Amino acid sequence: MRNFKLTVRYDGTDFYGWQTQPGRRTVQETLERAIAEITCEDRVRANVSGRTDSGVHAVAQVANVFTGSKLSCDTLLKAINAKLPHDVTVRELVEVPQSFCANKDALRKMYRYVIQDGRVLDPFMRKYAWFVRQTLDVEAMRRASQCLVGRHDFRCFESEWPNRLTSVRTITHLSLNRFGEFIWFDVEADGFLYNMVRAIAGSLVQVGRGFWPETQIADVLSAMDRKLAGPTAPPEGLFLMRVTYPDQTKQEPGN
Amino acid sequence: MRNFKLTVRYDGTDFYGWQTQPGRRTVQETLERAIAEITCEDRVRANVSGRTDSGVHAVAQVANVFTGSKLSCDTLLKAINAKLPHDVTVRELVEVPQSFCANKDALRKMYRYVIQDGRVLDPFMRKYAWFVRQTLDVEAMRRASQCLVGRHDFRCFESEWPNRLTSVRTITHLSLNRFGEFIWFDVEADGFLYNMVRAIAGSLVQVGRGFWPETQIADVLSAMDRKLAGPTAPPEGLFLMRVTYPDQTKQEPGN
Repeated sequence: MRNFKLTVRYDGTDFYGWQTQPGRRTVQETLERAIAEITCEDRVRANVSGRTDSGVHAVAQVANVFTGSKLSCDTLLKAINAKLPHDVTVRELVEVPQSFCANKDALRKMYRYVIQDGRVLDPFMRKYAWFVRQTLDVEAMRRASQCLVGRHDFRCFESEWPNRLTSVRTITHLSLNRFGEFIWFDVEADGFLYNMVRAIAGSLVQVGRGFWPETQIADVLSAMDRKLAGPTAPPEGLFLMRVTYPDQTKQEPGN
Repeated sequence: MRNFKLTVRYDGTDFYGWQTQPGRRTVQETLERAIAEITCEDRVRANVSGRTDSGVHAVAQVANVFTGSKLSCDTLLKAINAKLPHDVTVRELVEVPQSFCANKDALRKMYRYVIQDGRVLDPFMRKYAWFVRQTLDVEAMRRASQCLVGRHDFRCFESEWPNRLTSVRTITHLSLNRFGEFIWFDVEADGFLYNMVRAIAGSLVQVGRGFWPETQIADVLSAMDRKLAGPTAPPEGLFLMRVTYPDQTKQEPGN
């Protein structure tokens, strides 16, 4: 069996997330089925860097699959994309050592949460941003967010399910930038808890709206109580941008 | 009656174009109905700078409507947007003199045609660009397109229907720019014939693919025969970006 690493881009709008579920259209099942058709195998199983939830997008998700196929990488890439629907495509496909696992080997992941603020929703971004009908104070959000950088117990930003052995994670990069009516909240960490980025985004918007003082983010973090965090931001604003592995540098987010 | 000028943005994907047609979802009907509900009138009629076809988008379309409503511009804007579905929104609404007509007063219109080239379709742009699975020679397209600037009879780029009194138009600006895998073909003119931008885009792609010599665009233009032009490019890549009127400067395309 050969092991292939795939960089996958998907518009999450019409998917019930990554993970296969009976009777639901998911990215995993769509991808596995396309690959199995090409390789003429009964079943192909894709390991993924991390599941994404229903409605969440990926610019560069990473998965790996084992297959007995003798096709070249180039031929496989073309053939798989020809089978896939247009809301999911494989950007890159390379053969990797047998030991490579997209999940266990991931060093860091970078997510972007996109917010549109202002008076009028942008029709082109209605599925790709959280529309907040109020001008947000990005400077205040930026100041409030700085306490999150570094190694912390983020259980306050974790949804109840599933419980993990530890809720300590290290945020290596965090930034907030405004481009006209759009705000990009970028966060990179060695791992993320369930709904963590969306819970942080929802809390920072409370600050940006002026509902919370800037210091409240630090208070929530130290209280370690999910009930104190802000509302979970909706899925349509969230993009998995990049997964970093030790052997190489980065999965480029592309254009 | 008061006259209002509206700047309208829409994602054309799920509309059968601008113009009202029985049994079809159109931008005109959707907008007129929302306004009539707010103003409590039986029927409101929107004049538009120019109709857009099925599947074509608008970043800043301009229309005007007459209504007896006494509401302020700000209140009207909010109320109309609250009634509209999320794939069409009114960006701006101002009261204008009775004489203003969005159609007759338009001096120039600017369209952008977006092409994605390369190996793999981008899922996020599948409804907002024409995907051409071959790297296009943008320099050749740019050189070939220069002959179109200025005052010419563009009947070679006009679809048969409807016939107009004259097919002479003046292109005041034309540019082609590459941003990674995306190419923006921008064209501004005092008016456009039916399918003109898409016929030019389809012809320039013939040059970019290497199917046509660069000189063929000039040959087609001087031959004045539609059968010689390239295929009409698909609607999903076309955006009406801006309409310019004499009394003011520009309708900003916004963010």
